Amino acid sequence: MKLQELGEFELTKLIREIIDDSRHPEQAIWQDLSIGPGDDAAVWQGNNHLQIATTDTMVQDVHFDLDTVTWDELGWKALAVSLSDIAAMGGIPQYALVSLSLPGELESESISKFIKSMTNLASKFETAIVGGNLTSSLRIIITTTLIGYTPDRVLMRSTARDGDCIAITGYAGTSAAGLENILGKIALDSSCQQVLRRAHLQPTPRIKEGRILVGQGVKTAIDISDGLIADLNHICEASGVNALIELEQIPIHPLVKHNFHNCLELALWGGEDYELLFLASEDTINKAKLAMSCPVTVIGKTTKEAQLKRISLRDRNGSFVPYEREGWDHFGKKFSRAKNIRS
Amino acid sequence: MKLQELGEFELTKLIREIIDDSRHPEQAIWQDLSIGPGDDAAVWQGNNHLQIATTDTMVQDVHFDLDTVTWDELGWKALAVSLSDIAAMGGIPQYALVSLSLPGELESESISKFIKSMTNLASKFETAIVGGNLTSSLRIIITTTLIGYTPDRVLMRSTARDGDCIAITGYAGTSAAGLENILGKIALDSSCQQVLRRAHLQPTPRIKEGRILVGQGVKTAIDISDGLIADLNHICEASGVNALIELEQIPIHPLVKHNFHNCLELALWGGEDYELLFLASEDTINKAKLAMSCPVTVIGKTTKEAQLKRISLRDRNGSFVPYEREGWDHFGKKFSRAKNIRS
Repeated sequence: MKLQELGEFELTKLIREIIDDSRHPEQAIWQDLSIGPGDDAAVWQGNNHLQIATTDTMVQDVHFDLDTVTWDELGWKALAVSLSDIAAMGGIPQYALVSLSLPGELESESISKFIKSMTNLASKFETAIVGGNLTSSLRIIITTTLIGYTPDRVLMRSTARDGDCIAITGYAGTSAAGLENILGKIALDSSCQQVLRRAHLQPTPRIKEGRILVGQGVKTAIDISDGLIADLNHICEASGVNALIELEQIPIHPLVKHNFHNCLELALWGGEDYELLFLASEDTINKAKLAMSCPVTVIGKTTKEAQLKRISLRDRNGSFVPYEREGWDHFGKKFSRAKNIRS
Repeated sequence: MKLQELGEFELTKLIREIIDDSRHPEQAIWQDLSIGPGDDAAVWQGNNHLQIATTDTMVQDVHFDLDTVTWDELGWKALAVSLSDIAAMGGIPQYALVSLSLPGELESESISKFIKSMTNLASKFETAIVGGNLTSSLRIIITTTLIGYTPDRVLMRSTARDGDCIAITGYAGTSAAGLENILGKIALDSSCQQVLRRAHLQPTPRIKEGRILVGQGVKTAIDISDGLIADLNHICEASGVNALIELEQIPIHPLVKHNFHNCLELALWGGEDYELLFLASEDTINKAKLAMSCPVTVIGKTTKEAQLKRISLRDRNGSFVPYEREGWDHFGKKFSRAKNIRS
């Protein structure tokens, strides 16, 4: 079957099955492995702490377009997405490797800007870029691998329980709104434009917030990279729970609410917000909220009631809202939308 | 300046300078860093051992052609090149992350073969594939990141001294000969073809040999990925030494010697042999040789005498052989050749 028919999630499953079949439980590396493929990052037992590693690739004309992004923004984002994966594990980032495949006709000045911006972000999070790889290619391909650790424990996808509250940091849909503006779908004034562009191209990874979640006893988290519903679905699938989302609770940035009639769709399916979606008891979430300087909003809960779907959406009138699919598929390339939702 | 004018090595230097400028010596991550960009892998102090990490990218139609390589071979090679970097550091591989960018029209069966082959090689070296990333792209891009460790110390590029002997494991040029055959430049009988194809597409990383080198007191090593002369040049530059190579000592596989009139050129500039090139005193090299089951050949020495060039080549008559450049450049794409060398 072709990958575009199979889809990203089935392909991921196929690969995981092959890797699982290859396990040698008698080997030390497999004994030390805490989390293999299928979470935001891999985790294994180091000598005195858990080691965490994650990798992400950005491909020109798939993930970015040089006509609409600067080299500064590209360098920042390429590292930010991996930092966000470490944040989603509750980890502390340490060392990054950057693999660049570049066309020969690029200007070296562009690459200087790219690397400088990346080191600026790295410094903010006390992370060192320590190696990488250079090759030529027709289009730009950037793969960032980030290695970190946690002295205590990690946040996982598989630990949600029935009755957990579902919360997110910051706002959902701001990045997708930024992308719509960058693509010229909507004109905005320049200060608004700057906020949304930054949300899309220079997100701030929630490293500090991830550590607070661990400290406050939260066990379950993911970063919103595929989209709120898609990422919540990853947690529901991994934990075997159902979720009920109250649409009017979803935190949407005032600039997005004001300018985008489709703001709720952007918030639910837009992706790339790199906020943390986390689940815990109400008490625990309240404690985490008090400890954080960013907004934290409860948007729903896990429940045995909502048997109809893995994830149910309820509007302000208490009516369930039908929708089609759960998320972005890299191969299918269908950007899913709910039916008839307007905020 | 365009990258194709600047060249790979200058671009690497530029990136290293920016990263060096970004260092924060007061941060723990920089204090723990033993080796940053510029060796076969990055190395930092873990709790009880040195941690090692390396990354490599293979791009379709740059590094491989689906018309001439099978998915089994591709999976093997994509991991083997990273294992070889860990071997060149004298390290023990542990965990791999694999980032795949794939066109939607690929068959999932191909990816299954690819991953199975990769897990087969991983198992041989007690390595676990623990994560990665999937994205769509027009051409296939494979980035493998490998994390390992050493309980004692690492092999480096910068530790060669005047008077060291220069040795290599196995044969040089076999991989390049395999590539010439695959590209249809020369017809060979099928058993010969199989040996050379395997050398090019399914090299065996010298992990065991790297550990022996550490155990026997060798300090300096690199793997031959760019080519014997290019990689020796990396060591000479990093260590500030000159080298004198005796051309008739270079070990060339009998099948290559017999079938390729340009075998010496392939051995010197061909690359991708993934053998270890290492430097130490004669005594130390003899001890290492005794401890290894593969061929080990001394091919020259570092010297203060050879002042004319970083690397001098001497033929069987004691005459110095002129040559043009030192290696493969990913952006310049010039596959350098010596003048007038025939073995």
